[in-house]
Amino acid sequence: MKLRRIETPGIAHYAWLLADGEQAMLVDPSRHVQKYLDTAREMATRITHIVETHRHEDFVMGAAWLARRSGARIYNGNHETFGHGDCRLEDGDTFYVGNLLIRAFHTPGHTPESMCYAVYKDDDAEVAWAIFTGDTLFFGDTGRSDLPDEDSAVENAGCIYDAVHNKLAGLGDTALVLPAHGPGSVCGSGMAERSWSTIGDEKTYNDVFTLSREAFAQKKGGERLPRPPYFRHMEKVNLQGGLPPKLRDGDVGLVNVADFAQGGENQHVYDTRLPEAFAGGHIPDSYSIWLGGLPVFGGWVGDANSPVYLVTDRNDDLDPAVRHLSNIGQDNVRGALAGGFESWRDAGRDVEHSGVITPGVLHNMDNKLQVLDVREIDEFDSGHIPGAVHCYVGYLADKLSELPLDKAKPVVVTCGVGHRAGLGVSILLRAGFQDVSNLLGGMKAWQALDLPVE
Amino acid sequence: MKLRRIETPGIAHYAWLLADGEQAMLVDPSRHVQKYLDTAREMATRITHIVETHRHEDFVMGAAWLARRSGARIYNGNHETFGHGDCRLEDGDTFYVGNLLIRAFHTPGHTPESMCYAVYKDDDAEVAWAIFTGDTLFFGDTGRSDLPDEDSAVENAGCIYDAVHNKLAGLGDTALVLPAHGPGSVCGSGMAERSWSTIGDEKTYNDVFTLSREAFAQKKGGERLPRPPYFRHMEKVNLQGGLPPKLRDGDVGLVNVADFAQGGENQHVYDTRLPEAFAGGHIPDSYSIWLGGLPVFGGWVGDANSPVYLVTDRNDDLDPAVRHLSNIGQDNVRGALAGGFESWRDAGRDVEHSGVITPGVLHNMDNKLQVLDVREIDEFDSGHIPGAVHCYVGYLADKLSELPLDKAKPVVVTCGVGHRAGLGVSILLRAGFQDVSNLLGGMKAWQALDLPVE
Amino acid sequence: MKLRRIETPGIAHYAWLLADGEQAMLVDPSRHVQKYLDTAREMATRITHIVETHRHEDFVMGAAWLARRSGARIYNGNHETFGHGDCRLEDGDTFYVGNLLIRAFHTPGHTPESMCYAVYKDDDAEVAWAIFTGDTLFFGDTGRSDLPDEDSAVENAGCIYDAVHNKLAGLGDTALVLPAHGPGSVCGSGMAERSWSTIGDEKTYNDVFTLSREAFAQKKGGERLPRPPYFRHMEKVNLQGGLPPKLRDGDVGLVNVADFAQGGENQHVYDTRLPEAFAGGHIPDSYSIWLGGLPVFGGWVGDANSPVYLVTDRNDDLDPAVRHLSNIGQDNVRGALAGGFESWRDAGRDVEHSGVITPGVLHNMDNKLQVLDVREIDEFDSGHIPGAVHCYVGYLADKLSELPLDKAKPVVVTCGVGHRAGLGVSILLRAGFQDVSNLLGGMKAWQALDLPVE
Amino acid sequence: MKLRRIETPGIAHYAWLLADGEQAMLVDPSRHVQKYLDTAREMATRITHIVETHRHEDFVMGAAWLARRSGARIYNGNHETFGHGDCRLEDGDTFYVGNLLIRAFHTPGHTPESMCYAVYKDDDAEVAWAIFTGDTLFFGDTGRSDLPDEDSAVENAGCIYDAVHNKLAGLGDTALVLPAHGPGSVCGSGMAERSWSTIGDEKTYNDVFTLSREAFAQKKGGERLPRPPYFRHMEKVNLQGGLPPKLRDGDVGLVNVADFAQGGENQHVYDTRLPEAFAGGHIPDSYSIWLGGLPVFGGWVGDANSPVYLVTDRNDDLDPAVRHLSNIGQDNVRGALAGGFESWRDAGRDVEHSGVITPGVLHNMDNKLQVLDVREIDEFDSGHIPGAVHCYVGYLADKLSELPLDKAKPVVVTCGVGHRAGLGVSILLRAGFQDVSNLLGGMKAWQALDLPVE
Repeated sequence: MKLRRIETPGIAHYAWLLADGEQAMLVDPSRHVQKYLDTAREMATRITHIVETHRHEDFVMGAAWLARRSGARIYNGNHETFGHGDCRLEDGDTFYVGNLLIRAFHTPGHTPESMCYAVYKDDDAEVAWAIFTGDTLFFGDTGRSDLPDEDSAVENAGCIYDAVHNKLAGLGDTALVLPAHGPGSVCGSGMAERSWSTIGDEKTYNDVFTLSREAFAQKKGGERLPRPPYFRHMEKVNLQGGLPPKLRDGDVGLVNVADFAQGGENQHVYDTRLPEAFAGGHIPDSYSIWLGGLPVFGGWVGDANSPVYLVTDRNDDLDPAVRHLSNIGQDNVRGALAGGFESWRDAGRDVEHSGVITPGVLHNMDNKLQVLDVREIDEFDSGHIPGAVHCYVGYLADKLSELPLDKAKPVVVTCGVGHRAGLGVSILLRAGFQDVSNLLGGMKAWQALDLPVE
Repeated sequence: MKLRRIETPGIAHYAWLLADGEQAMLVDPSRHVQKYLDTAREMATRITHIVETHRHEDFVMGAAWLARRSGARIYNGNHETFGHGDCRLEDGDTFYVGNLLIRAFHTPGHTPESMCYAVYKDDDAEVAWAIFTGDTLFFGDTGRSDLPDEDSAVENAGCIYDAVHNKLAGLGDTALVLPAHGPGSVCGSGMAERSWSTIGDEKTYNDVFTLSREAFAQKKGGERLPRPPYFRHMEKVNLQGGLPPKLRDGDVGLVNVADFAQGGENQHVYDTRLPEAFAGGHIPDSYSIWLGGLPVFGGWVGDANSPVYLVTDRNDDLDPAVRHLSNIGQDNVRGALAGGFESWRDAGRDVEHSGVITPGVLHNMDNKLQVLDVREIDEFDSGHIPGAVHCYVGYLADKLSELPLDKAKPVVVTCGVGHRAGLGVSILLRAGFQDVSNLLGGMKAWQALDLPVE
Repeated sequence: MKLRRIETPGIAHYAWLLADGEQAMLVDPSRHVQKYLDTAREMATRITHIVETHRHEDFVMGAAWLARRSGARIYNGNHETFGHGDCRLEDGDTFYVGNLLIRAFHTPGHTPESMCYAVYKDDDAEVAWAIFTGDTLFFGDTGRSDLPDEDSAVENAGCIYDAVHNKLAGLGDTALVLPAHGPGSVCGSGMAERSWSTIGDEKTYNDVFTLSREAFAQKKGGERLPRPPYFRHMEKVNLQGGLPPKLRDGDVGLVNVADFAQGGENQHVYDTRLPEAFAGGHIPDSYSIWLGGLPVFGGWVGDANSPVYLVTDRNDDLDPAVRHLSNIGQDNVRGALAGGFESWRDAGRDVEHSGVITPGVLHNMDNKLQVLDVREIDEFDSGHIPGAVHCYVGYLADKLSELPLDKAKPVVVTCGVGHRAGLGVSILLRAGFQDVSNLLGGMKAWQALDLPVE
Repeated sequence: MKLRRIETPGIAHYAWLLADGEQAMLVDPSRHVQKYLDTAREMATRITHIVETHRHEDFVMGAAWLARRSGARIYNGNHETFGHGDCRLEDGDTFYVGNLLIRAFHTPGHTPESMCYAVYKDDDAEVAWAIFTGDTLFFGDTGRSDLPDEDSAVENAGCIYDAVHNKLAGLGDTALVLPAHGPGSVCGSGMAERSWSTIGDEKTYNDVFTLSREAFAQKKGGERLPRPPYFRHMEKVNLQGGLPPKLRDGDVGLVNVADFAQGGENQHVYDTRLPEAFAGGHIPDSYSIWLGGLPVFGGWVGDANSPVYLVTDRNDDLDPAVRHLSNIGQDNVRGALAGGFESWRDAGRDVEHSGVITPGVLHNMDNKLQVLDVREIDEFDSGHIPGAVHCYVGYLADKLSELPLDKAKPVVVTCGVGHRAGLGVSILLRAGFQDVSNLLGGMKAWQALDLPVE
């Protein structure tokens, strides 16, 4: 029996390949299924079962496409929000992968249809060897409870608590916890940086075990996490097992300066370089979204229909960038600037640059600068620069006019270390702000210098 | 200006990528176009022109598919056997790739529509820098002249002579010769093992230059080369720019012993291990075709509709094997034996083995064994084991009953070194021969030992 | 915190890289340390601690070399058989890697100096998160107890029992078990095919927990495992932290037929092709050792000073073959046959071939053939072909003259599936046996056909 | 016969591997010989001959190290500046590689010992198939003639002319020209961007053929090319066949912010990010040298003994950066900043930033800013911004005090596109200039906008 974790970077997504001899199950595939097929081949097995824990909101699933390419059957639950599936399982139903016994559990809360799947080494095993927990139980966290309905977040958190305690807790303390996401995912809030965990581990460290039902439900349900607009689209396409990838490596061509983004109003240019490079020079009206941030912040800026053009640091970044956007259903990438920003500047084209400022200098200005903090509200509330205005970067374009900021005066934008602030800077520039700077190192540097927070 | 040769192994096919700045032309693509897109990206250019020298017979072309993936336009000639193309060029027509001037020449002979394309560094260049010669001119050889019509092979060879002398010879002795094939291709007979050549080089070494028109036409037209049956199918699909690949890496699954090739009468099992391994044990009724021989001999054994199962030495050989078959239009590969021949033998399944014999032992038998030589007729005529029966391996299954061989007595099969003989052995075993051996090292070993030939 | 398992194939060795921020510990490195450095770089950390569980017998360690290349310090125990180390730890001693607390345990039994290392997520953790168990505790097995002294094997097994129960059992059922070997290692006998395990898992499945001390000691101490002669050499070089690799990729050159293995008496030719291919033809006097078997059976055939020449299936196998031999301290590889066995046979050189036989045919011969079974004694005793003679393949060359076998009559050699039998065949051929066959599929095929065993 | 070009990026160096069957010659190896061994293995041949055209000045050679690893013999000329070599050849001497005949020619001029080597397909060949021309003849250029002695540059250029005309011109117009460098090398001035060339091609395009001896000698000898200080060191180490690489991949560790470059006065920090990123924020006192510029400009800033610390854009850049420096003999790289500049800024460390300015804005300032042009003198003379001060970037640190620049006032630095200007900016900042900007796109952008030059 062999287990392999296959990560999708950018969305911190874990798919799992569990093989026993000539059969293997693949849990929660993304649409880029080639890597699963390659891994199965390398492990000398064949994917025969595709298992879904729930209808993911944060990426396009690949169950249907993987089924078509591998001939495997799709296993999920019998809740109506699974709109497809070859084997619709009820709570307690079992099936085999090789000699391994798999038992399905209905664990609603994160979503109404959420399922977990316990793995038993054989029919007689008293405890589970591992549990695929989807977004129900993470390392040190659970899935967020606000997605089905923000107003029922507390209630849903209670359901998660019940599912974990009634269905999972008794499966055995030594059972490995195999979730669908790791730290950095938008599906949870505070996952632990840990490589492996067990139910027993979680009993020691996880709020869902260490708090009372009431306290947990209040805390988890009270989180105020942003909900990117592309989630709705994901829920729709995933209802039917997701989509095949539309663009393959190499399909997005290099476009020269003359042809770049010349086609119309609604086109978005995403500049994936780091904030310092963006500050040092960029194409006017482009958005600053660092490479790893594309599958989250690309989903705030654009939608499935937006034509997108890319400015990448290197040609090698192009395919990862396209895959990142593909993961959130943005398949409309039209081209990447051949030669990157360099070819643009060397052609003498209009170039915009923005400011940078260090924490020390900002502190010495004695509140003379407007400061905009674009982190999530919970981050902001846990400590920010005195006098800072807050608006989460995802909402910034829409709410900018309501913020107490003077376009004609200098603004400093900050976030954790400067990545989201980079996007904030670009949104302000697009809105006509004249003098916008990124706080280098963001709140991390600010706090490293022991500067005052409120 | 940058030039890259991109080889398709097995069929000794050369595609060429010639880039000048942001434009590039790709000459004679196979259907596996990803490698061309990757190479263009790596060379920081974009394929804007797809150029065809002729309608290839020996592999499925990828012009139409590459056009769709890259957005490039297809350039070829205006002869009717090019049934497609965005730019149909007449003899002498020119176009630009970046600043490079490309001039088209109609050079019929190998096929009626054959074109060559000369590259000039600029408009004022007096001599060509290079010529894409397709199958018209190879290193030390020309294309075969029997394909359009075997009876006109001498006449066609004269046409090749004329095309080379009237159109290419005067373009400049320093012009690089950039053909569509290297040594090992079934499109020629005696290509030189040389990395690079020029028109001047060819004038020194190539029959088309060193012989008179008459002598060349007789020699070239008199070659008796086999014509694999799949050629007809290729000509048909290539009329419309070829086909996209049907199977991707990973699409062909590993099949366990129980499910392997259980489906019916017309299924072919290709065993791609080397002849010694095949002799040491193999699945009854399987064909022995070594990995590199698939894109030639797969085309003699099967056709586009034959369901194919593979026994490979290693899992890593599976994708290359599938690509080899794909190159000749065999997209019907149903599976590969999981664990290879080992899993078959370890399961206690029926195993057949065959004999091997060394040249010394055979020689000492004093003609007591039947010897079958399966090389091409020209190879056979240039020297063979006294008393050997001849039949080209491609025709063996059909002509076996006509050959003076006694099924009940031992037969030794030979070829150049033993690869084609391996296929011959498997065909004899399928036909019920009882005692069949492969001559280890074939005629190469025989001659290395100075044993008598006739 | 991140954990990565880095496998050394052939010897089923696991090294572990555990990183916490900018520090990382590498447990039990082999001498091929580049892969550890590469992995650390990829994980954005740096190896600062090298930890040894014991002085391994089955491979050359790389602690000293890794220390030199990385600047890390070596941590091990204070027993005298660790002849080196920057930090010699006593039972209970602790150190930190990043914020992780590591506690050392002295767990003698497999070897007198054996250590285990528990990992705690922080100072306050009540249970260990994981334990590096070296060769003390495997998945479903423990290390063998006969190595320090065969006569004390039962007593040593009792020590292992005590160490596991007194030191490890109480660290927490959820603690991950991270051993130095997986299934296939010569350091244990019956490891489970499992990807991950915990102390709790082991309590359910492992003899060391499910048997009484007495029963366990008798069973484990009573195993009759072969002890390859190279173990003594390993113990010696590992006393000082092992050795750097002597040969790098590319250092072993391709040697043409004329120059191959021409230099003298004591040279060994290892033919790494599969048994069928070896049977179909091989160089006289060569040893048949399949690629993956080199790091075990190379150690029975040769020693650190034997000049070795290789015949590999493919050029790509050369570097893995050299690394396999390097892992057991055989650095004296002089060359590989350019073009493999094919070039030998094509040159008309002397070729030897041997026989193959299927279980069905052998069974029908009614004991008329001599059968030699070369498996381990415990395997033989658990069921063999009626009338078979037994001798473990490792002792075969030495004990052949004592076996009741007639050189002039046919012999069938068998093992599990035919790999070790292949080596047995080559040893018999070298000794002058005339007619030697390999039983295709070995006892696995024999039993799959329900043929009689005794 | 097979030919492969193996490029060393950064120094535009071409080594050549020419194989004929089981023998191969490697011309002008760099010290990173693994890639040559790998290529030979892949081409199924073995390096038996190492051939040197001359004692290179611009990179550390690897002949001695390759000889040790491959067992090949070193072939060069018998001039005293080759201080080593197994076969010291006189003008006209020949040797064989497989069946290829190689003839040596003494072609002094670029250096006194320079040799060229013609390749003949067989003994009877009337014309050469190819010529390894070292630094004597490039595509569209010849080697520079000022290296042996600047005052004799015109005279040396005459020698090059004579060597080319007397030794090479007559070898055949179709002979391929296979030089040691391509465009971008510091060993020539104006090499053509061409993939392949022949003697005949060069007769059409190359000054050494199209100009008279006198005119060529004046033009070539009159070039004013900078001579990096590390050339002297190269000449010394290459006298004995160069050096093995001192640092392997992985040897340079990631160093955290606290430990980075803390060790003393003479340490150099090279920041290899692009100029915009450097402008957006960098470590005070660091040098801006883009990755590909390291093997040239690292040789101006540091020497073989300078301790070097690196700030790279990504971890993946570290090994290439170390190899770049290794190529010019700088083996003293102490570490790279873990996490790159980001970890520095996030730690709240002192950060310096500099300015950027677009050509349009600079032009509108009407000469109010000081402009410093750091290109080579010949580039400057061919057209520069009116009023610009000139100093080649390599000499800038030494000559800065002599330049008419006011430290207290803004300075704009420019070069071709901004890379060398980035280094210039960092040198000015180190010298205490207060307000330094990089002209985005440099003279390329300036001229693309048709702004005035003088």
